[in-house]
Amino acid sequence: MYKVKVFVTLRESVLDPQGTAVKNSLHTMNYNEVSDVRIGKFMELNIEKSDRDVEEVVIEMCERLLANVVIEDYRFEIEEAVAQ
Amino acid sequence: MYKVKVFVTLRESVLDPQGTAVKNSLHTMNYNEVSDVRIGKFMELNIEKSDRDVEEVVIEMCERLLANVVIEDYRFEIEEAVAQ
Repeated sequence: MYKVKVFVTLRESVLDPQGTAVKNSLHTMNYNEVSDVRIGKFMELNIEKSDRDVEEVVIEMCERLLANVVIEDYRFEIEEAVAQ
Repeated sequence: MYKVKVFVTLRESVLDPQGTAVKNSLHTMNYNEVSDVRIGKFMELNIEKSDRDVEEVVIEMCERLLANVVIEDYRFEIEEAVAQ
């Protein structure tokens, strides 16, 4: 089995209202040293071994569902889980 | 300046309906090798140097705003950004 971590973030050029809202809240709570906040998605997937190449499967899933490639970037880390 | 990455995930014991919905969609798209999906938040913060210890500031912000510690776990990575 593979443990895959997928990070989906808004492209730099895309406005991040959620990040701005969190930054403003942090300033209100006196954390003025925070100069920028960007918020994205973090997904942990367990993928069983199959005849398909796991990296190709992950790229396909990101391109088709997990990320909106028009406004988001994605990257991932694949780890082979030791059978328990 | 510090570049901080914060990962907020639901506790193992907490049901993840969003993750289940994504898993079901992936199965519908024929990615049956996916056995589990957990979805969390991924935040990138830029924090200016101040007289406060950056790790303590990050822990405080997580405990007070960035994570709901009743149902979520958080972890973070702190990187010192090289001045450009």
